[in-house]
Amino acid sequence: MRVSELVAESGVPLATVKYYLREGLLMPGVATSATQASYGDAHLERLALIKALAGAGLPIDRIRTVLALIEHPEYSLFESLGRAIAALPPYLDEATSAEFPRAEAALGKLGQVFDPRFVAVAQLERALRAAEDVGIPMTDERLEVYGRHIRGIAEYDLALMPASVEDAVPYAVLGTAIYEPIITALRRLAHQDIASPSNYPHDHPHDEVDERHEQ
Amino acid sequence: MRVSELVAESGVPLATVKYYLREGLLMPGVATSATQASYGDAHLERLALIKALAGAGLPIDRIRTVLALIEHPEYSLFESLGRAIAALPPYLDEATSAEFPRAEAALGKLGQVFDPRFVAVAQLERALRAAEDVGIPMTDERLEVYGRHIRGIAEYDLALMPASVEDAVPYAVLGTAIYEPIITALRRLAHQDIASPSNYPHDHPHDEVDERHEQ
Repeated sequence: MRVSELVAESGVPLATVKYYLREGLLMPGVATSATQASYGDAHLERLALIKALAGAGLPIDRIRTVLALIEHPEYSLFESLGRAIAALPPYLDEATSAEFPRAEAALGKLGQVFDPRFVAVAQLERALRAAEDVGIPMTDERLEVYGRHIRGIAEYDLALMPASVEDAVPYAVLGTAIYEPIITALRRLAHQDIASPSNYPHDHPHDEVDERHEQ
Repeated sequence: MRVSELVAESGVPLATVKYYLREGLLMPGVATSATQASYGDAHLERLALIKALAGAGLPIDRIRTVLALIEHPEYSLFESLGRAIAALPPYLDEATSAEFPRAEAALGKLGQVFDPRFVAVAQLERALRAAEDVGIPMTDERLEVYGRHIRGIAEYDLALMPASVEDAVPYAVLGTAIYEPIITALRRLAHQDIASPSNYPHDHPHDEVDERHEQ
């Protein structure tokens, strides 16, 4: 297909497609003349992948890292997963401490391995500290409830993991990057569903004021 | 305390403190001379809050929105929650469609209310579409497993909600913003725990290659 069709099919604007081509994230098409090239399904698939990773908040150099992990699974699944997680947001600044007392305690209570080389350990430490700083610290009870449910999700994720490393790496990497925004959105919507006025019928003072004004 | 102590206690650099003062996110101290001001615990608390929100990925104008919701809970809890969620990442571009077929179907299957005005509906739609585009679409079974566990977490969150709207709004807003990175980090660590070499003993080809070279 021509580049105009690639733009139409993928929903990615022409300027962005050209940018990805220049940056080498999208492989060049087959030249059909001095100014035209032909693109195929592989280009469409690659654009969908880049778009999804960009939508998950990855800057261009991190997208390049993840694409390399998926394309050339030279590491074990475990190692690839670690490298992919390191490429995903949130990004910690350089000055991050090498001490993770909160994360270590939490993982100990959950009975999980604590390895300070895992980037997610530093992410957990920072997030637990932020919760503490704003006055809603993680409690043992909350950790138990969260940990149990998150373990249930993670076990389901891993149970569906393809058997071959070639397929397992993209599944694990994309499953982490792409399903996090789904989990976040589902939790927000569950909050809104539970907190909706039909469940909290007396909790809409603003609406009541509006109604009084209208009467 | 003096500004130097505020910097030391909060861990926020002086330049950043001055920036927050200029932007009006941090209230001014009490002037003690032409060039000095005195700060108190309210300033420390505010800095912790701004730091936590910035750490959750909020740009300055969104932090301002969330602070306003917390400081002046003029809306109901439900309305405040909706406005707070709209201020949290991921941020959708203007061109977002007003059609949410995937989110509507998913919420229908979960038995939850579908309201296209919820910003999280657009977030869910985009995330579900991204999963589809990269070839790991949400299945009914995965949705059931995720939905059940996320509901469990959300119900726990709401059960601990303070009774007064004044306390409930900051709890709900911060609980959403601050606990999302914790959930993300915990899922990543659960994946790494389950996928660790002790559970997948034969899945480290890279290590094996290294060992061969060393022998």
